Amino acid sequence: MSLGASKAETSKVEISYAQVEQAATRLLGVAHCTPVLTSRTVDSLTGAEVFFKAENFQRTGSFKFRGAYNALASLGRVDRGRGVLAFSSGNHAQGVALAGKILGIQTAIVMPKDAPTAKLAATQGYGAEILLYERSEFQQLELQRAIATERDNCIIPPFDHPDVIAGQGTSAQEFFAVVPDLDLLLVCCGGGGLLSGCAIVAQALAPQCRVIGVEPAAADDATRSFRAKILQTNPTVPQTICDGARTPQLGELTFPIVMRLVHDMVTVSDAEVLATLQMLAERMKLVVEPTAALAAAAVLQGKVAVAGKRVGVMISGGNVDLARLWGEISLSALD
Amino acid sequence: MSLGASKAETSKVEISYAQVEQAATRLLGVAHCTPVLTSRTVDSLTGAEVFFKAENFQRTGSFKFRGAYNALASLGRVDRGRGVLAFSSGNHAQGVALAGKILGIQTAIVMPKDAPTAKLAATQGYGAEILLYERSEFQQLELQRAIATERDNCIIPPFDHPDVIAGQGTSAQEFFAVVPDLDLLLVCCGGGGLLSGCAIVAQALAPQCRVIGVEPAAADDATRSFRAKILQTNPTVPQTICDGARTPQLGELTFPIVMRLVHDMVTVSDAEVLATLQMLAERMKLVVEPTAALAAAAVLQGKVAVAGKRVGVMISGGNVDLARLWGEISLSALD
Repeated sequence: MSLGASKAETSKVEISYAQVEQAATRLLGVAHCTPVLTSRTVDSLTGAEVFFKAENFQRTGSFKFRGAYNALASLGRVDRGRGVLAFSSGNHAQGVALAGKILGIQTAIVMPKDAPTAKLAATQGYGAEILLYERSEFQQLELQRAIATERDNCIIPPFDHPDVIAGQGTSAQEFFAVVPDLDLLLVCCGGGGLLSGCAIVAQALAPQCRVIGVEPAAADDATRSFRAKILQTNPTVPQTICDGARTPQLGELTFPIVMRLVHDMVTVSDAEVLATLQMLAERMKLVVEPTAALAAAAVLQGKVAVAGKRVGVMISGGNVDLARLWGEISLSALD
Repeated sequence: MSLGASKAETSKVEISYAQVEQAATRLLGVAHCTPVLTSRTVDSLTGAEVFFKAENFQRTGSFKFRGAYNALASLGRVDRGRGVLAFSSGNHAQGVALAGKILGIQTAIVMPKDAPTAKLAATQGYGAEILLYERSEFQQLELQRAIATERDNCIIPPFDHPDVIAGQGTSAQEFFAVVPDLDLLLVCCGGGGLLSGCAIVAQALAPQCRVIGVEPAAADDATRSFRAKILQTNPTVPQTICDGARTPQLGELTFPIVMRLVHDMVTVSDAEVLATLQMLAERMKLVVEPTAALAAAAVLQGKVAVAGKRVGVMISGGNVDLARLWGEISLSALD
């Protein structure tokens, strides 16, 4: 199966809430049902009731484990035997690697040679084979085609896959089980897998709830796409500390879902993300990674009118080089 | 009431589990029932089942709110009218200030002029009056006598007070409600208020559970006292990053409780605390302050035999200057 064929197949697929329910059944006892946290400080600052879904406490440190596990667990016997391949230097890599370890499926992760040592080590620690490449030598798509042709593995993409999207949606299903009557749900957006999954769940469980996607200002392709109603792209790799949102564009599956089920898109600056990370650490004692603080930043920095509302905020992960992050926060405070 | 008289009165007092139950009733709906967290990584590293009671999520960011609130809520009408005085540049200050705000009792906190600005601001934010003094000009005890004579406030000491000890014990009561069959319970020790409260609860609810106090190696007065069976003192202010354990000695109440109900005392180095803080942040996504990581350090650095056991670890607070802490961790990694 080539990547191209896979994309063509999946682009026709509709993803239903029933698929999220099936994902939840697969994930039961495997993924953590992460806690929903509140803060009186945040409530009094915003005049809202704010609920944080803490996916930074998820296995592998981010929501990505949900989608990866659901995708691997959905493979048939033959595909399991072929092993799984993923392209990621981030949280998807760790999600796929741990899912493979749990399910007894061989996994290989393609990572750039300059990926952080800690992420390489964590992914290897879950038993994945690591395939390193020189970032300068290949265009991402070329590389994917070359490796996919060479190996017969099943490719699990990071967001544009029905089982991945359904898996990510289980986080929102858990969220609404704890707080059924949210007025707003804010979710960070890179490739749109988590946002799409959450929007599908909100439509089914809480149709009154407005779903808002949040992007870094420097990687606002989805926001522009949402406004233009035509898929927009980041022309170059976006320069933002939100590394999980440096994706070039929404996917063939996620773009239509975002257009149909998401109510609005907003952006926040890197400085606003840093201020939010500091607040989450100092007041809520949470270690959060930059991309995972986008939704919280939109609420705390006044990008969305929240006063008097019940507001759900997805905190999507906590995998971050802390020494480096606090260096950036200190520098930012000097500005 | 002078400080001296207060000490003499209280030194005869026994503290029973019933007082912890009364404290729990007072704290119901006021203090957070903090979560008990686990980590597969920690379990596989230690070969034990380790449970972390996350008091860093407590109101004001530490367990100190429990004891402070219980002490203030226990005051009679006349004493409430006199207002409350506390000596603290740390978590006790914030605990007393917030308790006073909730109960409508005026509070004044005596702090050194060089206390961290963030702590001054937080304490003031809860509505306490701040009395600053020049650290070099006064011995702690002299200063306390001078201010206590000048003002007619009730003094709420940070640990050596029955209501404070009973209040801190409620954290262990909640812990055993979630995990009744702990083999070991590890608790950090400064003045011994939390350790005493936890030991009283363990004796009542889980007599099979061994209670172990943990101190910084550079402030090991309680460990030496425990071994010598005679109260030992830190001759000078201990040099350790664990600022909550820089107390000169156990109290008149806490020393006998530690001797009677605590099963062992161990120490850990500052480097071991820093390694533990990093692990708690990177793997468990928790912001923890140095003193609050002592118990976790004893488990993670192999100071106590835990393999095959069910181990409770008190994480007592999360109020820390993160930029400074990560600077120290980075420096420590270079050693």
